[in-house]
Amino acid sequence: MLKLYAAPRTRAVRIVWLLEELGLPYQLEVVDFLPTTSSFFIQNTPTGKLPTLEDGAAVICESGAMVEHILERYGNGRLAPPDGSPDRPYYLQWLHYAESTAFAPLGVVIWLTVYRQDAADHPALVEDARQRAATAFSFVNDALEGRAYLVGDAFTAADIMMGFTLLAARTLGVLDACPALPAYLERICARPAFGRALEKLPMDPPTGATGSS
Amino acid sequence: MLKLYAAPRTRAVRIVWLLEELGLPYQLEVVDFLPTTSSFFIQNTPTGKLPTLEDGAAVICESGAMVEHILERYGNGRLAPPDGSPDRPYYLQWLHYAESTAFAPLGVVIWLTVYRQDAADHPALVEDARQRAATAFSFVNDALEGRAYLVGDAFTAADIMMGFTLLAARTLGVLDACPALPAYLERICARPAFGRALEKLPMDPPTGATGSS
Repeated sequence: MLKLYAAPRTRAVRIVWLLEELGLPYQLEVVDFLPTTSSFFIQNTPTGKLPTLEDGAAVICESGAMVEHILERYGNGRLAPPDGSPDRPYYLQWLHYAESTAFAPLGVVIWLTVYRQDAADHPALVEDARQRAATAFSFVNDALEGRAYLVGDAFTAADIMMGFTLLAARTLGVLDACPALPAYLERICARPAFGRALEKLPMDPPTGATGSS
Repeated sequence: MLKLYAAPRTRAVRIVWLLEELGLPYQLEVVDFLPTTSSFFIQNTPTGKLPTLEDGAAVICESGAMVEHILERYGNGRLAPPDGSPDRPYYLQWLHYAESTAFAPLGVVIWLTVYRQDAADHPALVEDARQRAATAFSFVNDALEGRAYLVGDAFTAADIMMGFTLLAARTLGVLDACPALPAYLERICARPAFGRALEKLPMDPPTGATGSS
C-alpha cells in the first residue's frame, strides 16, 4: 500500500488531495512540520523532506514527481490528458509551473517572513519577491480567463499542483491583481476530495492550539 | 518542426542538450536574455519566458515540461526508464528536484547577486541561501556515491535537468562539500551532445565581448 508522510500546510496537501480524488487506499503518517533554518532535510521522514512517498521499495520526495508516479501507475487515465493529445503539453507546463515558477518567489517571501522572521529588515526584498510572485500569477490568471480549469475543459492534477500554490499565495495576499484566480480557487477547493484532504491535513491551526487563552 | 527560443546560460541549454542527444531536427531561435528586475515575462519569446518551445499549435514554457513532452512524443523510449520500472519513480523525483529543490536557493543567490546586485547589503541572506543550496546538493551527492548517473545505470534526461543546475551551482561555488558532484558533472558534460549544445549556446561570454581592452 502507498504510504505518505505528511504534515498540514505543506505540499503534502497535494498528494492527499490526489489520492482522495482517485479513491486509492493509502496509509497516512502525519508528522510535525519542523520550520527550516538552513537545511531542507530535517523532517521526520525517510528522505528528510515533506512530503515523502513510499510505494513498495521506492521512496521518493518531490510532490510533482509523486503526482506523476501515482497517475502513471494507478491513475488509469484519470486526471491527466493522454499522451499525444493537444492538451498534454499544457498539462505538463502547468504541472511544472506550479512549483518552479509560481512557488519560487512565494518561497522567498515565506523564507523571509516565516523561517527567518527578519522580513522587517528587508522590506525592499519582500516587496520585490511579492511583485515577482504577482507577475507569475498574472500568467496563470490570463490562462484562466474564460476557462474553468487550467487544461482543456476538465479538472486535472495540474489544478491540484496549482491549487496548493494558490492557497499559499492567497494567505500571503499576492492574488489581488488576478481577478480570475479567487473564483478558480474556490471552484477547485469545492471538490469533495479536497474537503476530505483538509479533514486529514487542516490548513488552519486547530481552534485553541495557538492561543494561550 | 520543433522550434526552440533560447539564450545562452539559461535553462534553454537543457532543451538543446536533449534535442542533440535525441538527434531530432529543430529550429533554434537565439534571442538576447534580458535580466529581470521584477517580472519573469519580459523575454522576446511567445510566452515571455526562456526557454519557450513551439510544437505545432502548442507553445509552452517550463524546461521540465519540455523535457517530458519531447520524450513522450519523440523519445521512443530513450533517456527515461519505462513506466512501471523500479527506476521510474526516482527518475521523476530527480527530474523535479533539479528545478524545484536544487535550483530554488541558487535562484535566490542569483537574484541578489546578478539581478538586484545588492548582495553586499544582505550578506546574511546570501550566506543562508548558499547554505540551503549546499544542503540541497548534498542530497544529490549522497545519491551519486558509487553511481555514474542519477537513475539506475544509464544516463537519462534527469541528468540533463540536473546538469544545468550543477553548472550554475559550480559557477556560484556551492559544490565544495559535495565530492561526488564535480566528477559527475565532468562525466555528463563530456557527452558529444552537450558539446554540440555548448557550440549553439555558449556558457561563457565570447572572447572580447565583455572587456573593453
